[in-house]
Amino acid sequence: MSLKDMIRRHISGWMNMDGPESDVVLSSRVRLARNLKGRKFPNRASEAENLEALAEIEQVARGLIESGSLLLRGARWVRVDQLQPIDRQILVEKHLVSPQFVQEPANRGVLLSADETVSTMANEEDHLRIQTIHAGLRLGDALDLASQIDDMFEASLDYEYSERLGYITSCPTNVGTGMRASVMLHLPALAMTNRLSGVVQAVSRVGMAVRGLYGEGTESVGNILQLSNQVSLGCSEEEISDNLSSLTRQLIDQERSTREALARDLRRQLEDRVHRAYGTLTNARILSSQEAIGLLSDVKLGIDLGMLGGLDSSVFTELLILTRPAHLQKFIGRELTPEERDVCRADLVRERFRIDGLKE
Amino acid sequence: MSLKDMIRRHISGWMNMDGPESDVVLSSRVRLARNLKGRKFPNRASEAENLEALAEIEQVARGLIESGSLLLRGARWVRVDQLQPIDRQILVEKHLVSPQFVQEPANRGVLLSADETVSTMANEEDHLRIQTIHAGLRLGDALDLASQIDDMFEASLDYEYSERLGYITSCPTNVGTGMRASVMLHLPALAMTNRLSGVVQAVSRVGMAVRGLYGEGTESVGNILQLSNQVSLGCSEEEISDNLSSLTRQLIDQERSTREALARDLRRQLEDRVHRAYGTLTNARILSSQEAIGLLSDVKLGIDLGMLGGLDSSVFTELLILTRPAHLQKFIGRELTPEERDVCRADLVRERFRIDGLKE
Repeated sequence: MSLKDMIRRHISGWMNMDGPESDVVLSSRVRLARNLKGRKFPNRASEAENLEALAEIEQVARGLIESGSLLLRGARWVRVDQLQPIDRQILVEKHLVSPQFVQEPANRGVLLSADETVSTMANEEDHLRIQTIHAGLRLGDALDLASQIDDMFEASLDYEYSERLGYITSCPTNVGTGMRASVMLHLPALAMTNRLSGVVQAVSRVGMAVRGLYGEGTESVGNILQLSNQVSLGCSEEEISDNLSSLTRQLIDQERSTREALARDLRRQLEDRVHRAYGTLTNARILSSQEAIGLLSDVKLGIDLGMLGGLDSSVFTELLILTRPAHLQKFIGRELTPEERDVCRADLVRERFRIDGLKE
Repeated sequence: MSLKDMIRRHISGWMNMDGPESDVVLSSRVRLARNLKGRKFPNRASEAENLEALAEIEQVARGLIESGSLLLRGARWVRVDQLQPIDRQILVEKHLVSPQFVQEPANRGVLLSADETVSTMANEEDHLRIQTIHAGLRLGDALDLASQIDDMFEASLDYEYSERLGYITSCPTNVGTGMRASVMLHLPALAMTNRLSGVVQAVSRVGMAVRGLYGEGTESVGNILQLSNQVSLGCSEEEISDNLSSLTRQLIDQERSTREALARDLRRQLEDRVHRAYGTLTNARILSSQEAIGLLSDVKLGIDLGMLGGLDSSVFTELLILTRPAHLQKFIGRELTPEERDVCRADLVRERFRIDGLKE
């Protein structure tokens, strides 16, 4: 497959959209956890019971797709056990489903909208996990969209709900709104000035969780941090979204003022760093995932500071996904050893920059 | 001054010639030390005596230039104390004179042939130091040329000579032939496989001296070693030249077979290394002298192994000289701090590769 085909087929539509504050905020996500009334949680139910729940959700999901709603025009319903293992991993790398979700594919399905702004997992930890994603800082919009999808499902499904507690979920930490809001932040200037650990501490103190690029347990790579609410009980969905937005705005301000200070006081060193990163990405023949993400982070910073003329930020978002193992193997069309992946990753990155390289 | 002008004016003619075994041997040099009969050595003579000796040599040198000999067509005679400090340093960086020679410029002169294949210092440690240089492994030719220049001077000057010892020189280690032969070798494959210190030991055992790029006391940078004879007494000029040539051929064989083994067994890693070096050289905004030489060494290896299509080896020889401090300052036209030099060096290197870059 050519790289252009690969990009056309495998880069989610939402990634090509420009979002507000996209120099710092890569994406905004909202997830709502819902469960079906009178049914056991998936991890406590029998195979047969899970199959029943799946069938019920699938019927509703297919109905929604066919309803002609603009939100789900061109959407698809996918049974996880009918996907090739590589295609399951592709969904994980695109953040459309959780890693746990595809590890045991039986009786699980996912509804994906055409531009992959909406993904709804059936029979993950909860019966329904409605997820929405937007480029940039758009938590309010992501919440609106998730609520609309939620309403569409609720029109045909009875949810487990308590007047006192709110939505009942498999894990107690999700009880209440069942909501998790998160933002993916690119904080290279705070990282360069060794202030990232301070940020993590401060954020934790105000009740937010900090994770790396690929969720719980993943370390921060490429100066990317994922921030999300810890508490989903005792406040409204709007409050959760607003709190995270306002915290995010503070971090945006810190990151931007640090970038400005660096660009003012250490301009040459910064130019050197971002250009070297570009030089390595466009010339290396072997590139580990870890190194690639670090260099891409430098290049993204260079683009945002106007130091790399002619390059578009979408290079960063695209390559962050395309250089993951499953995407590389999809691109090549066969399984690759880790060593082969490092070679293939370098080839793909060079080709991507040839399509859309630096104008000096 | 434009970079093309800089190259035209300041790159010695001999550097553009292709020499034999130039994948390993950068250059071959011969130096003959001679002293004037009945005159004190320069470091023991008075100012007045040195001025007298200089006048005598200058007269002969000017006579040779005007004689119409092909060897010295277009040659020039230069009084060191009439040069700007920057131009003295330029001569050192081009290996045309010794660093000691320009440190005390009084009563010193140098005869330079048009392509700088011949340089003859007057009143260095000895009254006359006749030096010749050729690209590649051409010690025999360098010796022939030096002998011809020697004969031309001797036709008008009386040398201090002993039937028993040979030519009498200021430093006892040069007594006899007064000859030092040397080759500049690029040994990146031996360096990568950690065999350079073994080479140094072996070479020392057979009576040869090993030095770095800029003579005594300089460390090996850029995987470049300078090999020369230690003994100038008790064997003929041809024997000295032949011994060094044959030792050099052994090292060429070792270096080449190691390159072949690397290119066979670790091809991808080697390609990665040379392309990364190219990527850094063509993108960095700050480049120290040390780093530049190391990266240029990798690029030269890549060119010699056919891994960097469209690039010519002359890039290496030229940039080795052009990125030295005095050349950088000549290029910019003013004095530069070390920090400014690192920026200017990066600019110059990028520009040089833009003139004559990689064809993919």
